[in-house]
Amino acid sequence: MAIIGAGMTEFGELWDYSFREMGIRAGLEALNDANISSEQIDAMFVGNMSAGRFIDQEHVGALIADYAGLAHTNVPSTRVESGGASGALALRQAYFSVASGIHDIVVVGGAEKMTDIGDAEMRSIQSAAADQEWETVFGATFASLFALMTVRHMHEYGTTREELSAVAVKNHRHGALNPRAQFRREIKPEMVEKSPIVSSPLRMLDCSPVSDGAAAVVICTSEMAKQFTDQPVEILATAQASDTLALHQRKSITEMLATKVAARRAFDMAKMQPKNVDVAEVHDNFTITEIMAIEDLGFFPKGEGRKAAIEGKTAIDGEIAINSSGGLKARGDPLGATGVAQIVEIIQQLRGNADKRQVADAKVGLTHNVGGTGASVIVHILGAGP
Amino acid sequence: MAIIGAGMTEFGELWDYSFREMGIRAGLEALNDANISSEQIDAMFVGNMSAGRFIDQEHVGALIADYAGLAHTNVPSTRVESGGASGALALRQAYFSVASGIHDIVVVGGAEKMTDIGDAEMRSIQSAAADQEWETVFGATFASLFALMTVRHMHEYGTTREELSAVAVKNHRHGALNPRAQFRREIKPEMVEKSPIVSSPLRMLDCSPVSDGAAAVVICTSEMAKQFTDQPVEILATAQASDTLALHQRKSITEMLATKVAARRAFDMAKMQPKNVDVAEVHDNFTITEIMAIEDLGFFPKGEGRKAAIEGKTAIDGEIAINSSGGLKARGDPLGATGVAQIVEIIQQLRGNADKRQVADAKVGLTHNVGGTGASVIVHILGAGP
Repeated sequence: MAIIGAGMTEFGELWDYSFREMGIRAGLEALNDANISSEQIDAMFVGNMSAGRFIDQEHVGALIADYAGLAHTNVPSTRVESGGASGALALRQAYFSVASGIHDIVVVGGAEKMTDIGDAEMRSIQSAAADQEWETVFGATFASLFALMTVRHMHEYGTTREELSAVAVKNHRHGALNPRAQFRREIKPEMVEKSPIVSSPLRMLDCSPVSDGAAAVVICTSEMAKQFTDQPVEILATAQASDTLALHQRKSITEMLATKVAARRAFDMAKMQPKNVDVAEVHDNFTITEIMAIEDLGFFPKGEGRKAAIEGKTAIDGEIAINSSGGLKARGDPLGATGVAQIVEIIQQLRGNADKRQVADAKVGLTHNVGGTGASVIVHILGAGP
Repeated sequence: MAIIGAGMTEFGELWDYSFREMGIRAGLEALNDANISSEQIDAMFVGNMSAGRFIDQEHVGALIADYAGLAHTNVPSTRVESGGASGALALRQAYFSVASGIHDIVVVGGAEKMTDIGDAEMRSIQSAAADQEWETVFGATFASLFALMTVRHMHEYGTTREELSAVAVKNHRHGALNPRAQFRREIKPEMVEKSPIVSSPLRMLDCSPVSDGAAAVVICTSEMAKQFTDQPVEILATAQASDTLALHQRKSITEMLATKVAARRAFDMAKMQPKNVDVAEVHDNFTITEIMAIEDLGFFPKGEGRKAAIEGKTAIDGEIAINSSGGLKARGDPLGATGVAQIVEIIQQLRGNADKRQVADAKVGLTHNVGGTGASVIVHILGAGP
């Protein structure tokens, strides 16, 4: 299976663009990049977490197909949702539909319009990917659940404030090189450490922002891809795993078991190991999440992930480039769009088109997208085409 | 591809059951029916329209996997949404995932918990499958959009009040025979005609009710099905089509173009014609919707569908049994569950297990599930196994 086109909007507070306009812009860029016309599209999959609450609009699969001009070919269009992992989930469904032989060319989109509502409603929606009956109703916010993980990780592994800050600093440094990133400026550790507490010990600059944005890719079989591009990106593996929705039911909260399982399934499918990966976009909705992710994905031993950013190992020129796009932290995190934007970044890296963010000699990339506090994790492994 | 197990809750105002409890009950019944244990499940797909607004809970794929006891095998679980067509869409994704060769045994669930909120919020949520920017914001409700279609259908084809009423009367007659139906009592045409106006000319008894409920089926390859059951039901076709989200952009509002296109795709895939179908569950969220559906699916010529119920042609013992379950009208319409419940009814019919509702000699069944006012339509054709 190959990816033949990619596109995305800038991420940020896009007050000039509606949900549907963002979807169209990202989609058209992907179609142009793939050199295909809309008539050639057999199906569309859209990752979106919560348009029903953000913009009072469900049924956004049909909406985006319509506004992309595809209603006249009555293209099947499907919205999928898995909290913050909705984007990667859309790619996975598209993969199934092409692998099944039913569709040939499929567009995958992800979109979220978050900034049209107020702060209280925002927190309520973000927490809706956690367990409403056992967590949210008792006052747990999304940040407070990740704060619990942070404290425990500090207790078990000695993770420090400085090590957390280094993740944010690195991702802002990467984001400063990304013209589509929400935050294109570097920050210093002191800025993280003096930023307001959100849920102790997590501070504002430990958290990914609230964002609008959309991203899209076009996939088809590897055979067919040759018609459209000299630089197809191969999907070497797609894997998904679940865990308990609520944090308190897990054996450990210093790892995401679903990440470990999804990673194992993905590496098995690709017949690869973590050491084969040159560049990875991992879910860093909070600084602690990146540290856990690079441990659970097998890039660093458990308890050692905390040192990676502070020692420069995860920088663009480090041992393994983590979040060269800036990650959720600096590129932005429009929930349903994030998983697809991760794919877009890896495509640019594997094509050698990442400009100042280019990871030297990048041949294999991985994406890691998390829903809720880790109840859904989706991992994809991509390879530079022939 | 085969279906090897089916289950569903009663539909109705299930105040004793939470969303997750309904999901588990339907799922366990399907697993028991399929004679499989939860360890054998490779993946789960959940159709749900709006849990984010009904119960403040997104991420319900992971939720149901967790409460069904599947978190310990980290089963991939995916929520899909397409308004009222979310249930059929879940089956379609499951079909892809098995046909792709990646999964072997997959559970498909549909669930919606609608009755825990007030009427005003309810109307807002139901309308969220229509076009928020061009319809809902101007005061159009879901019923008023279907009322427009009704008036135009009356104008173009002479459809009468009595013909609409006959659809409701027939479906209540069928529902009275269905122990899982929300309304298990017959009604008379005068009752429909004296019921309160919802949006002229549609009256209360032209409308499907607000419902809680869940339904589930288990699918696997046809080869594998033999291990589990002597009565597999074959999925002969799956098809999906889209149309413009807003009604005013369509050439005609007396047909659903997406139904016609999805039906053509499904009959092509199954290598069948409408006359081959013995029993069909069609989307009758309003009486007019059933009339348009049986025309657009090719069971009756355009303009003749209005006569079918009043002349007894769509009764259980008629030319083609339409909505033997009672349909959305009498069985109930818990949005995300409806499409899966339609499949459950066809399975019972094809197995010859439909008791007093049994359609004689039913070999081929069809389901027709609509999202919004017809912007998404999904059609499945099922056949009795060998």
